[in-house]
Amino acid sequence: MERRGVLAEGSENGVAHGGDLDAARRLFPAAPDPWIDLSTGINPVPYPLPPLEASALHRLPSPADLARLKSVAAAAYGAPGPDHVAAAPGTQILIETLPRLVPRARVAVIGPTYAEHAAAWTRSGHEVRIVGALSEVEGAEIVVAVSPNNPDGRVVTAGALLRATGGRGLAVLDQAFVDLEPVEAAAPEPGLVVLRSFGKTYGLAGLRLGFALAEPALVRRIEAALGPWAVSGPAIAAGCAALSDDEWRRTAASARCQDAERLDRMILRAGGRILGGTALFRTATFEDGPELFHRLGEAGIYVRRFPEFPERLRFGLPPDKAAWCRLSRILK
Amino acid sequence: MERRGVLAEGSENGVAHGGDLDAARRLFPAAPDPWIDLSTGINPVPYPLPPLEASALHRLPSPADLARLKSVAAAAYGAPGPDHVAAAPGTQILIETLPRLVPRARVAVIGPTYAEHAAAWTRSGHEVRIVGALSEVEGAEIVVAVSPNNPDGRVVTAGALLRATGGRGLAVLDQAFVDLEPVEAAAPEPGLVVLRSFGKTYGLAGLRLGFALAEPALVRRIEAALGPWAVSGPAIAAGCAALSDDEWRRTAASARCQDAERLDRMILRAGGRILGGTALFRTATFEDGPELFHRLGEAGIYVRRFPEFPERLRFGLPPDKAAWCRLSRILK
Repeated sequence: MERRGVLAEGSENGVAHGGDLDAARRLFPAAPDPWIDLSTGINPVPYPLPPLEASALHRLPSPADLARLKSVAAAAYGAPGPDHVAAAPGTQILIETLPRLVPRARVAVIGPTYAEHAAAWTRSGHEVRIVGALSEVEGAEIVVAVSPNNPDGRVVTAGALLRATGGRGLAVLDQAFVDLEPVEAAAPEPGLVVLRSFGKTYGLAGLRLGFALAEPALVRRIEAALGPWAVSGPAIAAGCAALSDDEWRRTAASARCQDAERLDRMILRAGGRILGGTALFRTATFEDGPELFHRLGEAGIYVRRFPEFPERLRFGLPPDKAAWCRLSRILK
Repeated sequence: MERRGVLAEGSENGVAHGGDLDAARRLFPAAPDPWIDLSTGINPVPYPLPPLEASALHRLPSPADLARLKSVAAAAYGAPGPDHVAAAPGTQILIETLPRLVPRARVAVIGPTYAEHAAAWTRSGHEVRIVGALSEVEGAEIVVAVSPNNPDGRVVTAGALLRATGGRGLAVLDQAFVDLEPVEAAAPEPGLVVLRSFGKTYGLAGLRLGFALAEPALVRRIEAALGPWAVSGPAIAAGCAALSDDEWRRTAASARCQDAERLDRMILRAGGRILGGTALFRTATFEDGPELFHRLGEAGIYVRRFPEFPERLRFGLPPDKAAWCRLSRILK
């Protein structure tokens, strides 16, 4: 059943990613189109954007536009003020940028997790270990954790992360999936940088918008590395609207948590064992993981698999009733 | 007449930029609104974008989306193929990124020019000189030129730039303003990286899209530094549509060249001496440069001035008939 060329599935720099339906189509050329893409953790019910002013496309974003976005983000994310917020075209570029701003160090990444963290620190010449728990980071000057973790939902608090670095070095807390969770979001403090993703929560991943919350000195260095105008006009407009709409976020959190529970019930019914996840994805092991991946793929449903854990599958949330039904027909 | 705080006018990292109308409003609080912003070199007649598919906002851009953009860009820019094209969220971030990919070197920037080049190489620890001509670059391993140059339109060819680096090192040719000019655009070749701006030509600066044309090995290093998904879905869609529309570009080139000639006539009538420029901006000296800047500002027309050359002003193209009339009333 397994086709060749699987390493090319959504792979960039050797790191595999979800979200690449063309890869799915290559793997399952006979599958019905349109595909249901459950291979990412992006909210399938996007924030309803207000109409875009033409000037957001035509003009360079002004310093005042960016300042407004940073103020709204500071309020939404609980940062002391806009000087504690760096905005970027997605968190991915922040993951790439941070390792270049720090002298060569020993880095511990709590894993398994989103693979771009270890890859980026390694690319910048740091000495990187992937460890299973915070208790194993001794000797590391920089400790990186994703919380809630992708793919298993494990939670690491900012306090625990800071204790692990002992106040020296830098604690990097990627809270890409915290917005819709009943988990406390972290505020920036000395020695801690928090990453927040806009696109996942608001279902607007194509816009490219993400944030680092950090002490102002580090924020300024991140901004200098990205240069002026790194964030597009449409992303600034969307960020200002969505991040100030707390009611939408609370309603979405409640709806997506219900979706996640429904997905868990389907997974259990299909013989899966839930490893964990967030309101935007669920990860489970199945005795017949590779076969289930193929059954889903042949039905035009693309989920995330993990080459190193063949029994493990990660499911994003179906976008609508028809997708829930199609998934339900396979997960039985 | 001169107000305080002028250094803050559109300044980021100490580099002054046009395009910041909030700065204009602070300088001229009594000016009529809306302002006419002539402080940038962005095409005032934007490319008519086709309606955006919702998936471009909601989904992560796929590798196939990016590959399509790179193919279209390679054809439009005369690169041998997509492997010679790196796409980025604006050329600015390429200007920031290139210096970090090169070991510490002696850099000569042909100036005066767009100030971010020298600033970025300096920030990355290189030894930077600004020289007046290619004949003065001796000893530099890296030579940077903007052609046609901002603000004076001076042209440096790829061949001359490569002869100046003697085939060693790296020649950086920023052709941000070449698209609408009767000037030959450069193709990438060993030792040469060409920067191309999308937003200026197509009047879509807020979208953030720019390109580096280079040998595949350098392209791969640039892409690794930016990470996957650096370019947004809307930018990819706009780039694919506009860059494959050669007729629009040719018509725009002809119309903007006529605009530029009309602007030159107005400038001459007002006693200005044309230094040069491109189809998207004209730069001139005026005996009463500082006073003219203020007369324009008080009439709600924002042009670019240069702290180090107080007699010099740069004019972008007025966007419509009303703007031409308002400008004409001051330039007389």
